[in-house]
Amino acid sequence: MKFDLLATDPGSSARAGLLHTGHGVIETPIFMPVGTAGSVKAVHQRELEQDIQAQIILGNTYHLYLRPGLGVLEKAGGLHRFNGWSKPILTDSGGYQVYSLAANRKITPEGATFKSHIDGSKHHFTPENVMDIQRSIGADIVMAFDECTPYPCDYAYAKKSLDITHQWLKRCVDRMQSTEPKYGYGQALFPIVQGSVYKDLRERSAEFIAAQNQPGNAIGGLSVGEPHEDMYAMTSLVCAILPASKPRYLMGVGTPENILECIALGVDMFDCVMPTRNARNGMLFTADGIINIKNERWKDDLSPIDATLGGYVSSFYSKAYLRHLMINKEILGAQIATIHNLTFYLWLVKEARKKIQEGTFAAWKNDMVKRVRERR
Amino acid sequence: MKFDLLATDPGSSARAGLLHTGHGVIETPIFMPVGTAGSVKAVHQRELEQDIQAQIILGNTYHLYLRPGLGVLEKAGGLHRFNGWSKPILTDSGGYQVYSLAANRKITPEGATFKSHIDGSKHHFTPENVMDIQRSIGADIVMAFDECTPYPCDYAYAKKSLDITHQWLKRCVDRMQSTEPKYGYGQALFPIVQGSVYKDLRERSAEFIAAQNQPGNAIGGLSVGEPHEDMYAMTSLVCAILPASKPRYLMGVGTPENILECIALGVDMFDCVMPTRNARNGMLFTADGIINIKNERWKDDLSPIDATLGGYVSSFYSKAYLRHLMINKEILGAQIATIHNLTFYLWLVKEARKKIQEGTFAAWKNDMVKRVRERR
Repeated sequence: MKFDLLATDPGSSARAGLLHTGHGVIETPIFMPVGTAGSVKAVHQRELEQDIQAQIILGNTYHLYLRPGLGVLEKAGGLHRFNGWSKPILTDSGGYQVYSLAANRKITPEGATFKSHIDGSKHHFTPENVMDIQRSIGADIVMAFDECTPYPCDYAYAKKSLDITHQWLKRCVDRMQSTEPKYGYGQALFPIVQGSVYKDLRERSAEFIAAQNQPGNAIGGLSVGEPHEDMYAMTSLVCAILPASKPRYLMGVGTPENILECIALGVDMFDCVMPTRNARNGMLFTADGIINIKNERWKDDLSPIDATLGGYVSSFYSKAYLRHLMINKEILGAQIATIHNLTFYLWLVKEARKKIQEGTFAAWKNDMVKRVRERR
Repeated sequence: MKFDLLATDPGSSARAGLLHTGHGVIETPIFMPVGTAGSVKAVHQRELEQDIQAQIILGNTYHLYLRPGLGVLEKAGGLHRFNGWSKPILTDSGGYQVYSLAANRKITPEGATFKSHIDGSKHHFTPENVMDIQRSIGADIVMAFDECTPYPCDYAYAKKSLDITHQWLKRCVDRMQSTEPKYGYGQALFPIVQGSVYKDLRERSAEFIAAQNQPGNAIGGLSVGEPHEDMYAMTSLVCAILPASKPRYLMGVGTPENILECIALGVDMFDCVMPTRNARNGMLFTADGIINIKNERWKDDLSPIDATLGGYVSSFYSKAYLRHLMINKEILGAQIATIHNLTFYLWLVKEARKKIQEGTFAAWKNDMVKRVRERR
């Protein structure tokens, strides 16, 4: 994996780059739609590529391991072949499930034991087998196995957890070095900075992660309920330590505003369920702010959802029709809203990239942040 | 509306024709996907046109009247403009709701009073206002307001109901003649033959309906639970009476087998929720029979869903991936299965049409019926 840093914004730490993978080149900054179980909910693969213009999507190790299971994925020749998405894929490691399934897992220095959310069966994840699973899934970017700490998290726990995350990282690196990809293309490991909202832990973690000298680096454990100022402060601190020559991925972030602010801090890659999950509830993100499409106000508004974006779906369907579908709980409503929101997120990072390359990002960002957070 | 009868099969009563409407030409025999509330569930309009190659879809008067309501539809310039489907639309009249909402409606010679399934509010439908509503919706083909009798239905009730349906038809015809289309293109009224499974009532009804001399004719009140032999017997009887020069529409039918058999009896148009509703439960119709895609058997079957059809979706996705999506209740599963089933239904009627034009329909039909009803 190769990362070309093409431009840095004079008024901020924003960067534009190219990330080369075995399934093509990714233009950064980039937003990665979440496809937990091998499908970005309510979106066809063709729509992801042609309408949304996604360049990379996420899968989730824990979910894919449970279903369809590694046997099917290996027989298919990996997730790309299984789901028909031929561009890059990144798999989250299951570290987020260590956080979200708190009541149904136990962590030891050896690894984590989960109770499946599907049938209650027990599964043991270790840094080693999580790497092996990601070899079988065949993602282009595989994430280290870590603990994503909750918020709030007391200092003692955050410190102890960080030590485990760092020990696990060593084992992840070793395992990746001692195994080969299964499907003929390279797989890059991204370590994850943790440390909750504690400056010294975040600094120590960022230095430790940077020292592993992996092809890219991630920032985890944010966007879990902490104030935005903490998220920005930690991101800023960590970005200053992580090497500029490698892509930086801020996990699970966020609103359009969060993304713009964190691009300004030097982040290159983002993922979040917000555009997809909120779409299914009728919340639309547009270039002019946030819309609840179920509101009476849109009942007879026959204007396109958002013609600014140039996307087929956002221009073809009207607000009134989408409202009608959402009110009627028609599946097509979820489909249209999801495609729209993802089209908007991809449009936003593309615009940001253009502004970075033009050297006008900072001023544009300050204006755009005000627009995208407005509630209409 | 003009109907060109192009060919009649020498070995059956099957016909191939062209039905000209204000939104383009329909090749018959045809299957019409059901879009009750202005959306064929889980399918984009673009997919309907390009992948499924639907030529006409259905809307439902009762549902569209309740939501989005006539105000919005009129402001949009009719349903085509509202939902972006620019090919022909047929609207069911609400007669089916007279049947399906039996507990929540009251019929008098004047009309029917419904309690809305949404909020319990009362609505009065008459032949006149149902025609007016369909003028506002703007369908190319509008159905007469009738009573669809249940099965079983005693003779006395079927007879009394038929008299009301015929009286209502007169009022529908009068109303259509005394009003104008709202959006600049013609709207054709199709009367509906009723009479339950009683030969004399069906004959009388078919003669009465034929005498109205409308641009097309429909057969209702079948596929409501009666044995298939009754459905075929009534259809055969009625087709022999309805004029050959006009299209014949058999409402709510049916399985692929039913459709093939009824094409052989002289039916030109079909609609049914089966391909869409059953798709959402994992039942797939293919050229080689019926599949329950949730079965363990398809778990690692990486072959295309059905490459015979030539459709993008049915060739692109594998059985194993679709099974995985259905088992995980992923929305994309419903989307793929629906597009597949409709692609199959449209493929089936297109193949039938080809065989009719070649004069080889009867033998092909007998073979095909065996294949499509097989459970794999």
